[in-house]
Amino acid sequence: MQELSQQIAFILELDKLKAVYRKALIKADNNRYENSAEHSWHISLTAHVLAPYANDAVDISRVTLMLLIHDIVEIDAGDTFAFDHHSVLGEQADKERAAADRIFGLLPLSQREKFISLWHEFELAETPDAQFAKAMDRILPLIQNMQNEGGSWAQNKVLRHQVIKRNHYLESSAPKLWEYVLAQIDIATERGWLRGE
Amino acid sequence: MQELSQQIAFILELDKLKAVYRKALIKADNNRYENSAEHSWHISLTAHVLAPYANDAVDISRVTLMLLIHDIVEIDAGDTFAFDHHSVLGEQADKERAAADRIFGLLPLSQREKFISLWHEFELAETPDAQFAKAMDRILPLIQNMQNEGGSWAQNKVLRHQVIKRNHYLESSAPKLWEYVLAQIDIATERGWLRGE
Repeated sequence: MQELSQQIAFILELDKLKAVYRKALIKADNNRYENSAEHSWHISLTAHVLAPYANDAVDISRVTLMLLIHDIVEIDAGDTFAFDHHSVLGEQADKERAAADRIFGLLPLSQREKFISLWHEFELAETPDAQFAKAMDRILPLIQNMQNEGGSWAQNKVLRHQVIKRNHYLESSAPKLWEYVLAQIDIATERGWLRGE
Repeated sequence: MQELSQQIAFILELDKLKAVYRKALIKADNNRYENSAEHSWHISLTAHVLAPYANDAVDISRVTLMLLIHDIVEIDAGDTFAFDHHSVLGEQADKERAAADRIFGLLPLSQREKFISLWHEFELAETPDAQFAKAMDRILPLIQNMQNEGGSWAQNKVLRHQVIKRNHYLESSAPKLWEYVLAQIDIATERGWLRGE
């Protein structure tokens, strides 16, 4: 039963992701901040719903598991805002690597290796699965902000070109969604939710 | 682009599950109530971690999608406590069927049919996938309550035999986990977190 004890320790550790709050706002719950656990659920399901737009190389089951685990490192490293300065984001990457070793390290060896390797694949964003997963992580805040008068963009004075760059994985992994995103960014700019320069 | 508009309407609708609160408590976040979105994330990942104990017939990718969608009906129907009276739970089933038609009905036809059929399969709990999914939905509160001095059991005066009954899907879908659960229920009873009769 030693393996089971390790697995249960990991499952319990996951509870802590529900206490990591992001900059995104939940309109449906009095605009409180979103936590990384519910966000992970939302993008995992978003990936299933938008799967018909993914290019043929994408395996949606792998994408789903990648998205379910992608934010777990925030339990130790915290969330950083997507549009923070590069220096902040660089330091964050080191913290996240250490967090992956500690948290996935709670699991039995074979699962530990599988999860760490999947998390690295997501971070590197070089495979079709990882690129589609990254794209889902990034399209959802856009969809939410478009329904919430600019939401976290407007609150944090985000620039139009930052959002275009952040969503660029869609260009190859789901071209139809890329067109949609560019059109939404135009609308957001016209309405003053994104800054033009 | 009409299909995409329907898919985005569905994705936005999902935000509301983050405002549906359960009786379960999050120890890691000052014992606030858990919402059904973060709970769905937690059990989807729990299913992956405990997959090695599932019997051979279980397809963990289908189980994951089932768990990601299983609580969406609560957006309209609300959450009911697992140990409420049968009359309350019967009324709830009617509300949930109507909710499934409305919410999954936001999707394009092919996805709508797939999701509704998967949700029905989960509810009926007759296939190996649905039974393992149900088992995951039920083992997680047990794991959480064991770490939290009885948690929602102690708060709601739950009886030992109710918890045994609720976890019985494990007996066939993951026999090793069933042994573990019975041992935990014994400990909870000894400590007074579950009532004996």
